[in-house]
Formats: sequence, C-alpha cells, structure tokens
Amino acid sequence: MSPTRQLFRLTPPQILVLGFATVILIGAVLLSLPIATEGVAALSFTDALFTATSAVCVTGLVVVDTATTFSTFGEVVIMILIQVGGLGFMGFATFFALLLGKRVGMRERLILTEAYNQNRLGGVVQLVKYMVIIFALFEGIGFLILAARWVPEFGLKGLYYALFHSISAFNNAGFDLMGDQFGPFSSMTAFVGDPIVSLTLASLFIIGGIGFVVLVELFQYRYARRFSLHTKLVFVTTLCLTVVGVGGILVIEWGNADTLGALGFGDAAMAAFFQGVTPRTAGFNTLDLAAMYPATQFLIILLMFIGASPSSTGGGIKTTTFVAILLAVWGMVRGHDDVVTFRRRIPHGQIYKALTVSVASMALVTIMTMLLTITESSDVFHVFFETVSAFGTVGLSLGVTPELSETGKFLVIFTMFAGRLGPMTIAFAVAKRMVKPPYRHPEERPLIG
Amino acid sequence: MSPTRQLFRLTPPQILVLGFATVILIGAVLLSLPIATEGVAALSFTDALFTATSAVCVTGLVVVDTATTFSTFGEVVIMILIQVGGLGFMGFATFFALLLGKRVGMRERLILTEAYNQNRLGGVVQLVKYMVIIFALFEGIGFLILAARWVPEFGLKGLYYALFHSISAFNNAGFDLMGDQFGPFSSMTAFVGDPIVSLTLASLFIIGGIGFVVLVELFQYRYARRFSLHTKLVFVTTLCLTVVGVGGILVIEWGNADTLGALGFGDAAMAAFFQGVTPRTAGFNTLDLAAMYPATQFLIILLMFIGASPSSTGGGIKTTTFVAILLAVWGMVRGHDDVVTFRRRIPHGQIYKALTVSVASMALVTIMTMLLTITESSDVFHVFFETVSAFGTVGLSLGVTPELSETGKFLVIFTMFAGRLGPMTIAFAVAKRMVKPPYRHPEERPLIG
Ligand SMILES: [K+]
Ligand SMILES: [K+]
Repeated sequence: MSPTRQLFRLTPPQILVLGFATVILIGAVLLSLPIATEGVAALSFTDALFTATSAVCVTGLVVVDTATTFSTFGEVVIMILIQVGGLGFMGFATFFALLLGKRVGMRERLILTEAYNQNRLGGVVQLVKYMVIIFALFEGIGFLILAARWVPEFGLKGLYYALFHSISAFNNAGFDLMGDQFGPFSSMTAFVGDPIVSLTLASLFIIGGIGFVVLVELFQYRYARRFSLHTKLVFVTTLCLTVVGVGGILVIEWGNADTLGALGFGDAAMAAFFQGVTPRTAGFNTLDLAAMYPATQFLIILLMFIGASPSSTGGGIKTTTFVAILLAVWGMVRGHDDVVTFRRRIPHGQIYKALTVSVASMALVTIMTMLLTITESSDVFHVFFETVSAFGTVGLSLGVTPELSETGKFLVIFTMFAGRLGPMTIAFAVAKRMVKPPYRHPEERPLIG
Repeated sequence: MSPTRQLFRLTPPQILVLGFATVILIGAVLLSLPIATEGVAALSFTDALFTATSAVCVTGLVVVDTATTFSTFGEVVIMILIQVGGLGFMGFATFFALLLGKRVGMRERLILTEAYNQNRLGGVVQLVKYMVIIFALFEGIGFLILAARWVPEFGLKGLYYALFHSISAFNNAGFDLMGDQFGPFSSMTAFVGDPIVSLTLASLFIIGGIGFVVLVELFQYRYARRFSLHTKLVFVTTLCLTVVGVGGILVIEWGNADTLGALGFGDAAMAAFFQGVTPRTAGFNTLDLAAMYPATQFLIILLMFIGASPSSTGGGIKTTTFVAILLAVWGMVRGHDDVVTFRRRIPHGQIYKALTVSVASMALVTIMTMLLTITESSDVFHVFFETVSAFGTVGLSLGVTPELSETGKFLVIFTMFAGRLGPMTIAFAVAKRMVKPPYRHPEERPLIG
C-alpha cells in the first residue's frame, strides 16, 4: 500500500495526534535555531521541544523564561504556535481550506467532530467559521484595551505586548513577556493591583475557556431564544467553580502575609478573583503560588484538574464532565435511574463517557506523578501540582519546571500533549480497534465495592 | 409513630451506619474508663473514640501506642472490637441469633446483603455460618503458629500475643502489642528478618483480604468444580497487585540504605514481600515507611486506595471495582460496547456502580485531605497518605496520627468510618430517597471531555 493510502486509512484520533505532533516538531526546530534566542547561543533541542509543546498545547509551563531567553523571532514563533494550538490544528487547516475555496469533505468533518468533541457532524464547519470570527473579535478587543494601558508605559513595545498577551490570554496559554521588565518567571505579579490588566486578561481567558459552542449559542440567542442543556451546564458549573475558587482563596489566604494579607481590601479581592479563575486553565498568576498555604494549593489542583469547558482553548477533564459525574453519583444516591437536570435526561452513554474520561485522566496524572517522583528530587506535592498543571494545560507551577531533569522534561512534555488531546484520544490513536464478535458472552456479575 | 416502628422503618444502610456507630460508642466508653489504661490516668474521650473507631473499622491508625497505653482490659476490649468490626456487626448479630435458635427474617437478610455487598439474597445466612467457621479456622491456625514462636521467647505472655496478633492480622486490623517490647509505634519492625512471624501474619491478612465469598467457593470447589467470575477476578487482580507492590518496592527501595539496602538478600526479599502486601489493607509494617523514597510511598497510596476484595476484612475501593474500571476503559478504547473478561460479560450496571464507588471514594479522600491540610501543620503529602490509609482502613502512617489536632482526629475518625462502610453506604443512609416520577424527561446530550 502506498504511503498516501496508508495515511488515508488513519483514524481521526491518529490524524489529530500526528497533526499536533507535527506542529510541535516544526515549532521545536524553529525555536532551537540560533536566531530564536538572545543572550544564549541556542536552546537545547529538549528545551525547544518543551517550549513548543507548552505553546501548542496552550499550557504555559516554561523551562526558560520566555522574554529574557527568546529573541523577537522566537517570541513570534511562540505566539503563532499558541494561536495554532489554541484554535486547534484542524480548525486552522479547515479555515485555510475554506479561504482557498476548497470543499471540506466528510472525512475532514469527522476529524473536526473528534477534535472539538462534538456529538454530531452537522454544523461543524460552520463552527470553525464562527470560531475564527470569535478569535478575531475577542483578541482584537483585548489587544486594544491592553494597548491603551501599555503603550503609555512601554511605548511601541506596548503594542507588541498587547498583541502577545491578548493572544496568550484568550487561548488560555499563560505565556508572558514580563520577564524583561519585572524579572524572569514573574508572570503577572507586577499587575496584582492593576484592574485594567487583571480584569482584561481574566475576561479573555474566561471567555476563551467557556467554549465556542456556548459562545456561538450566545451570539445566536436572539434568533434561537433558548439555550441548550450544554450551555446551561457550562454556565452554572463555571459560576459555581468561580465562587468556590475565589471564595476559597479569599477565606484561606486572607491572613497570609505573603499573599493576600499584604494587600489592601480592593487589591486582595481582585487578586483572589484572578487566582480563583486562572486555574481553569489560564496559567497566569498575580500572587506567588509557592507562598500560598497548602490548602489553597490543593484547591488549585482540584480546579486545574476540572479545567475549562469542552470545545474551548482550556484543558482539564472539563466542567461538563465533572458535573455529569456529580449528577450521576447524586442520582444513584437518591435511587433515581435517570440522570436528570434542567428537566432534561443525560443519556447513560454520556455519563459512562464522563466517568471513563475522568478515570483515564486520573490514571494518567497518577502514573506521571509517580514517574516524576522517581526522576525528580523535588517535593512530592510540588511534583503532583506540576503534573496536574501539565495535564490540565494550565501552566501554574510551584517552581518545579525550571529544575526538571532531562527525563522529567520528556515526562511533562508527554503529559501536556496527552492533556491537550485528552487521554482517551491518545488511547484511541494507539489501540487497535477490535472487530466486533458475532456473538455476545453470557453475563455474570462480580461483587463491586 | 412509636420509636420501635420508626426504627423498623430505617433502611438497611441506615441500620448499618447506626449499628457500627453504636458498637464504636460502646467501645469508646469502655476505653475511656480508668481501668482501660495503665500509666496514664485515663484516656481523653476523643482518643478513646479514635481508638475504638480504628479498631471497629479494622484500620489500625493509633493516636497512642496500644501496648504501653492500655491495660490488659483495654487491650482485650480492642481485640473484641476488632473481631466484631472485622466480621461485621450484622454478621455478629446474625451469628448470635442463629446460636439462640432464632429465625433470620427477610429484613435481616436484606441488611446482610447490603453489609456484605452481595448481589442476591439467597445464601446470605449460609455465608455468615461459613464466615464464622472460616474465622475460627484461620485465627486458630494463626494462633498456634504464633504461639509456637512466641511462647519460648515471652513465656505465657506469648500465648496472649499470639491470640491478639492472629485476630488483628486475619481481620486486617493492623493493631499490635509490640510497643512494650520494642518501643512505642514499632509495629512489626523487630520481626523484619523473622520468616515465621512475617509469613504467618502475611498469610493471615492476605487470606482475610481475599473475601469470604472466594474462600467459601474454594472450600466448595470439590463439589462445584468451577469458579465464579468474581473469584477469578479476585485471584488475578490480587496476584497482579502483589507482583506490582512487591516488585515496585524491591526495585525502588533496593538501593535505599534506610530500608532494603540495610538488609541481606533473603531479609530484603521477605521485607519487600511483607510491605508489598500489607497496603492491601493490613497495616502492619516491618520497614520504616517514613524512610522510604517518595515514589514507594506513592505506590503504597495507590495500593491502599485499591485495597482488598469485597466481603473481606479489608477496605479500599476493592480489587474487583478497580479491575472492572480498567476493563471498561480498555473496552471503550478498543471500541467494544460490552465489557468482557474470562468469556463473561460484566453488565453495564456493575461497571456504573464501580465507577460511582471510585468517584465517591476519590471525592471523600480529596475533601478530607483538603480539610486536614487546613487543620494540620504536617507535610501535605504525609497528610494525603494518612487520609488514604484511613479511608482504606489500612493503618499505615508516615507519623501524622499521633500529632493530629483535636479537629484532625475527628476528621480521621469520620474517614475511617466512611471507608469501612463505603462512601455510598453513608450517602444512601443520609440521603432522602426520591420517589420515582411517573414520567421521564426528554434526553439531551451535553458535550463531554
Ligand atoms: K494554560
Ligand atoms: K488495617
């Protein structure tokens, strides 16, 4: 069989894995070129691969400080990788195909359906068109506001900062260029008391994390006059998680002199808000995470694991997955066979999928944490935090990333990759599909629990 | 309504929760009496409640060293609490009812079915009879072997040690009386190189953790000539987890001078075997857990969470729950709708139950760990280890238990209780059952993952 036909026989999950891997490799090669860096001669290929993976998977974990290490060329490469990774490489490919007037075939629609976790084939090309419009709209607005704030302070460089951070925020990437101004790895801590920067970035990554399906529905509300169950669940869950995150940080950290305790009331409230929403899964920070109490760090781990909403730029197991499981457990406790919410029944197949995604994700995080505790000498809890951050494509860190060993870097690279695509997509891509046998085995019930 | 009729209206999960709680409270009152302790005047009620809960839930976590704190009266109370808790209070009640020639009614059978996680009502009274025989048999054999080893060393006290440790081991309780001889909290570390003690205890808790359903099937094999799917799954999973546990500890700890590295080849192999099987869920240790590498401690956390097999004296989510989930995820990855193993199909309801039990257990462990990181100043990872140990009724500790705050003790008490009964039983007992509505809501599919 010719290579082309072989490629044609790849399943949608395999295409996605290969596509993302290709984009990452191209990025890694570009970032390892001498012109990509300033100061240092050139990045090791491992570090370049790590940075490219972190950008394409919109994670934001960094082994080297972005601003002080990379040249403008390198930074622009990172920005483009973030945009391609955030929109999704299939969305990007489809957009260019549409621009060139090409037809999007059934096969491409199937891959898009897989890429954006859609339940149906219909409207998936329309979704891509809307996505591009939404990206342009919100990144444009973000750019204008940040430019208005930063051009007076940094001059022309402020325009560049505005563009980079608007893209980084809306794609939930968490990359920043503030190392030049306020010290390496400072993230957004310099703007903890700046409402324009804080709230603009937070708005961008919250909207980016809501998911395009919801955003499209919002735009179409005046015609449709109703919201889908999906949109209602995303809204309620996002709101609840925000309240839990912000409230939890406020309550726990209020007396911590190294975090909220050092700030005035208004700044503390704003910082708590920012840190409460950033684990889902933006990755910027305005407070020093390492100075937080362990209880707060634990809360952030939970929020990072849950992550953003489906078909968004964010990661994690997703808000709807989380709420579907809660509803299923609650239903079982109440003795109700159906999982009912908002007067709609969520089919058991969806619950089953939610549980499988969660279990596979936990397995991935657990195995990766275990391997990293072997390869790294860092504190176990910090390593666990790092793994969940990588899996959820969040990018928050308690300081483990820059100290990672060579093997550790590859483990985190794999975790980011698996986290962006989803462990089930990776598994589908690798596993050989079974041919369904023509008979069914007899049933037998083992004891459970 | 009269109180008797009110009691009669309690559901089986409510009876189990109240029954276990009553036994614990009686134990706590007895252990707080001045005659229960030696040296100290009397135990605080919190410490007595903690010890009673730990004994009834066959956990083995101790806030005070058992041998040096309690009088012989106190130790015998603990031994009885372990026996009642290990057999299960309903099994105990049923056994006495049978002894007194009483009829076991439909209602009691229903509660027994719930208590031992049986799928069917039939044979549940027969199971209790077998259980009592099995307890007497194995605890008797254990007693004889340990007596032969300990009477020469400790004289008459060796008989008492043999009885206590045989009961503690077969019930997977993890309580020991070696503090008198080898220092408080020393557990079985003095016997790391003693094959008779090590292997007898390990055999007792492995057999106790296999589950009575499997043991009964083994005894009946010469008539039945076949094993159920349940028994096959328990055997394969127990074997695999033993290989993973023992092998993992051997490989990781081989070079650790504070654990295996200090021992000769034979002793090291025996110690690795003992520590590899004790997390499921015996709780004795022959090596210093705190001296182990974090990777080993992490592996032990996993094994403790999975725990023993259903209808056994052990805790955790259970081996069959774990393997059912693995099979379900594997099946989904391979694109197979049915979950098939050993040429049998596990019904989706069972998989669903396994996933719900696991998710509820993870939620419990997560919430308790978070609360404990707030109340305790100990290392977060050590607190996490402690919580999983309490949930899995294991009893291993990295040293957190004796340092627990007053609130922390109550949190661990609740975790042990919920771990022994299962989080779903607690939820069933507390939640109000919903009356099934006469209609079904329309179906709608949110995006998942
Ligand atoms: K991120
Ligand atoms: K135990």
